[in-house]
Amino acid sequence: MIDGSRKDLKIRLNRISGQISGIGRMIDEDKYCVDILNQIAAARSALNSLGIKMLTGHLESCVLGHGSDIEHSCAQPMTQEELLDEVRGTLSNFLK
Amino acid sequence: MIDGSRKDLKIRLNRISGQISGIGRMIDEDKYCVDILNQIAAARSALNSLGIKMLTGHLESCVLGHGSDIEHSCAQPMTQEELLDEVRGTLSNFLK
Amino acid sequence: MIDGSRKDLKIRLNRISGQISGIGRMIDEDKYCVDILNQIAAARSALNSLGIKMLTGHLESCVLGHGSDIEHSCAQPMTQEELLDEVRGTLSNFLK
Amino acid sequence: MIDGSRKDLKIRLNRISGQISGIGRMIDEDKYCVDILNQIAAARSALNSLGIKMLTGHLESCVLGHGSDIEHSCAQPMTQEELLDEVRGTLSNFLK
Repeated sequence: MIDGSRKDLKIRLNRISGQISGIGRMIDEDKYCVDILNQIAAARSALNSLGIKMLTGHLESCVLGHGSDIEHSCAQPMTQEELLDEVRGTLSNFLK
Repeated sequence: MIDGSRKDLKIRLNRISGQISGIGRMIDEDKYCVDILNQIAAARSALNSLGIKMLTGHLESCVLGHGSDIEHSCAQPMTQEELLDEVRGTLSNFLK
Repeated sequence: MIDGSRKDLKIRLNRISGQISGIGRMIDEDKYCVDILNQIAAARSALNSLGIKMLTGHLESCVLGHGSDIEHSCAQPMTQEELLDEVRGTLSNFLK
Repeated sequence: MIDGSRKDLKIRLNRISGQISGIGRMIDEDKYCVDILNQIAAARSALNSLGIKMLTGHLESCVLGHGSDIEHSCAQPMTQEELLDEVRGTLSNFLK
């Protein structure tokens, strides 16, 4: 994974982590259920975006083989067919 | 919100928080994208379950008016019609 | 189910049916994959909206017992607790 | 699009079309809301699978340039970067 990309992912993840902590505080403070629910939906959307970012990054660097100017963890001996099968499985996890 | 219910929500939330931290570590350690993606999908599923738990709790305690043996934050002067409209809006946030 | 509500559901469903036929034509005419995909996403969103409409209708008429000015199919001998369990299961089907 | 693939997509689509008709009949016959809801969820899942099938087909034939043994509609003058941007946008339509 390229450093800039990793940094962006970490920023997004920290934001999600903050959303989760916020939801915890809302539960502690007995906030109105619907407000908590909307925060859960927001954290879920942020995870969706993170997943899309990660998946297209994977397609770019591991499936298409671009952007590999640094050491990264895609260099597995898989055919593109196997890689696409894996992508298919992962998409199913998101779109069950 | 009833204490038992709040405790259960907090347990689920702590687990999700742990999943998010785990994803952060996987990014730091440059784990394989697809493994990270599957963890993101798992955290997303856990948030979905939390949302469903929260929503049915809301229907039970705030819309139907059950289980209100302790002080909780549902007692807003809303009609059931308004409450259902709110539920509709919240579901749209989850099922956009 | 109340007649007005049933009519609205049928209109939405006919629209979805038209979207599905349109996707079939796009496949036959070998349209660009991404355009077809966006139509699939649109049909999926329309099904989500139909589901939300149906679910809040169910909450209103069967769980809360409103709007039952005509014969309808909710009058099963279920407790509200059982009804909420059923709602929980249905939501899980949508938010897996 | 390759013929075998197109045929498979059409079979899936016909099945979804049948599910939609079935839901219409259930509404006409005033079936129990929750049963209808579960059918809506099933049609939604089938659309998700169709989308995943279509998307991985697109990645294979249009983004990676495989399987293009017949005329198909991917041959647009787009760079892989542009194609990935398009994929990103499409995924957002599914995972909003």
